[in-house]
Amino acid sequence: MHHLPRYVPEKVFFIFRESDFTMKLDELKYASRFDNVSGSAIREIFKLIAKPGMISFAGGNPAKSALPDDVCAQIAKEVLQQDGKAILQYGATEGYAPLLESLRAYAEEALGCKVDGILPTTGSTQAMDLLCKALINPGDVILVENPTFLGNMQCMRLYEANLVPVESDDGGIIIEKLEEAIIKHKPKILYTIPTFQNPTGKTLAADRRQPIAELAAKYGVVVAEDDPYRDLRYSGTALPSIKSYDKEGWVMFLGSFSKIISPGLRVGYMAGDPRILRKCTVGKQSADVHTSNLTQAIVDQFLRRNLLPEHIRTICASYKEQMDAMMEELATFPAGTTYTKPEGGLFIWVELPEHLNALELMSKCVERGVAYVPGTHFFAEGGHDNTLRLNFSNSTVEQIHTGMAVIREVIAEASK
Amino acid sequence: MHHLPRYVPEKVFFIFRESDFTMKLDELKYASRFDNVSGSAIREIFKLIAKPGMISFAGGNPAKSALPDDVCAQIAKEVLQQDGKAILQYGATEGYAPLLESLRAYAEEALGCKVDGILPTTGSTQAMDLLCKALINPGDVILVENPTFLGNMQCMRLYEANLVPVESDDGGIIIEKLEEAIIKHKPKILYTIPTFQNPTGKTLAADRRQPIAELAAKYGVVVAEDDPYRDLRYSGTALPSIKSYDKEGWVMFLGSFSKIISPGLRVGYMAGDPRILRKCTVGKQSADVHTSNLTQAIVDQFLRRNLLPEHIRTICASYKEQMDAMMEELATFPAGTTYTKPEGGLFIWVELPEHLNALELMSKCVERGVAYVPGTHFFAEGGHDNTLRLNFSNSTVEQIHTGMAVIREVIAEASK
Repeated sequence: MHHLPRYVPEKVFFIFRESDFTMKLDELKYASRFDNVSGSAIREIFKLIAKPGMISFAGGNPAKSALPDDVCAQIAKEVLQQDGKAILQYGATEGYAPLLESLRAYAEEALGCKVDGILPTTGSTQAMDLLCKALINPGDVILVENPTFLGNMQCMRLYEANLVPVESDDGGIIIEKLEEAIIKHKPKILYTIPTFQNPTGKTLAADRRQPIAELAAKYGVVVAEDDPYRDLRYSGTALPSIKSYDKEGWVMFLGSFSKIISPGLRVGYMAGDPRILRKCTVGKQSADVHTSNLTQAIVDQFLRRNLLPEHIRTICASYKEQMDAMMEELATFPAGTTYTKPEGGLFIWVELPEHLNALELMSKCVERGVAYVPGTHFFAEGGHDNTLRLNFSNSTVEQIHTGMAVIREVIAEASK
Repeated sequence: MHHLPRYVPEKVFFIFRESDFTMKLDELKYASRFDNVSGSAIREIFKLIAKPGMISFAGGNPAKSALPDDVCAQIAKEVLQQDGKAILQYGATEGYAPLLESLRAYAEEALGCKVDGILPTTGSTQAMDLLCKALINPGDVILVENPTFLGNMQCMRLYEANLVPVESDDGGIIIEKLEEAIIKHKPKILYTIPTFQNPTGKTLAADRRQPIAELAAKYGVVVAEDDPYRDLRYSGTALPSIKSYDKEGWVMFLGSFSKIISPGLRVGYMAGDPRILRKCTVGKQSADVHTSNLTQAIVDQFLRRNLLPEHIRTICASYKEQMDAMMEELATFPAGTTYTKPEGGLFIWVELPEHLNALELMSKCVERGVAYVPGTHFFAEGGHDNTLRLNFSNSTVEQIHTGMAVIREVIAEASK
């Protein structure tokens, strides 16, 4: 090939450019699993926020300052020098052996219980995908929180699952409603984000955790306990995982290093019963053979060198200031606006007065350089047009003050 | 967590250990896509070859000496120092922008044609998975070579595709048989490995490449042109890709850096029509969001610094010697044994006299410290018990002489 100069961002090659399509390929019929998936609304937002100078409360990205580039540079070099031949060779689908050891110790401390099996995955997104692959036939029911993480809703829909929302309150899923829904819908999976939930920031109450594990075992429902924000706690005390109450093996814990080390490395994991993990492992063989050994080795060194506690303390201190700034601004919003007061995580959930439409307001905000995600996208059945999700981790305190003032003004104008 | 010492291999944590299972979870019903998948035979082989001192002709691993650990260590450090904040942040599902540029230039030279769209994937295994995700409903037909790569057969089976073999000869797929099969079975996909095929080492004849592209367009069949061995040519001249004859967009080219840089990094790509790639990209969003930016950046630097041509020359020189040593040994095998004479790649395909069973012989070989893969595993419909696949890339010339002598002895004893 021609020798290429150093990459210059302005010269980005856009892969989906126009060209002369013949009719014939347009007649190609795609798999029916795509009939249920559009996902375009959120992508439009991400296109908008790519504009320079935009203040984005839309993503779930870590702060730039929270990404340990120098440490990773050093670790990447060292692991390749010390174990490069093994790292660059094919690895086991079951995971990079050193990481399996350090991850188990980390996970057992995080979950507060013994871990029977553990599978490193290409981000925890892949863990959800593999769990659906192992369990879901078209039409099978997955119970979800209402609202819930839209990325994983797309995953479930691509497996043609039937998503049924369960009623929640400020303490998360309501146990009585959950049991009713289980009896009525015979779900295969309950999907829950118990800590600093995406999108609401709410945390499942301590006294609802054991009952969920018990209902799962009573009725034979696999619980996908998706807990990527667990370590980002700014106040209050850590609660036991649902998994820690699991006696029968029905709870699969999905963990991630995306929010506490780096999302770009794509390393997550699934911890739980070895029989379910075995199916997921066979599914992973033909999904990507194994997660990159290099990124697994980097995470292993973070754990093995015990770098996480101090790193987490640093980023939590900063995220707390950012969240406090956003809460401070929200306190000045017009009456009728309510919002969650999370003890950690990345998101605040806002409910505007009912007559306001967060989709419509967003285009006005975007015109003035501020973006968020309208809440309706997080509901399995849509609606809730007066809600929105705000992220504070990827904006400076100054940007938060400026951006929230814009949203407040746009709301005030719409309320006239 | 407790501070862990440096990892010691003997202390490997085996994740699938015995524990007290309750009855209840054993009643869990997995998704029916697993009804078609066993895949255990090949895994048993890989367990056997883990024994120290085993000479393995079983895998498809690059030689240890072919893995550029020092270069990767240097590059990994540099890219993280120079673009670490972008590499460690969430990336686009569509790929790391610098790689999109360098990969396009590389692919256009490799394929000998313009490339409309390109999608980096987590190994080319993921490319096959995404293509099935985009196109395959349960029961849809995929035409496959007979024999073909067993890993991708497992992928297709997990999408509940109906695998139909097409007859081949020494020049690869027979065009008349292909057209017959297309008319009879109305396949969604034709899966072919045109260059130094896995497992046979055969190469699709030059004059069959354009006809395949034309039949694809005539009948509306997507061709998955899986070409990971293309650059490993030890004699003869490179042939044009099927993709280079594709006027209508029906050919999707699957490329990989596993055999020419490193399989442990997990970077491959799919090149072809942007409309099909778009569906694959939506499928990838919920599969792993994006391929690790770090491993994409490392491959980008290999391309951008033009390191591949010299690296490929070096490994090809070594692989040629290894292949020649294996061919030399095969020439001394008893009459009635036939084998392919590849111009490149990683594999030689052996047919023993019909009364011999390569599965039975393998356990005798393994007892004496030599492993291979029985050929039956590569046939969609099984059978062909007298065939076997030999890999030469992951053994030294000395190991090849020793190991082939063992196989020859075992055959001689069984022939008595």
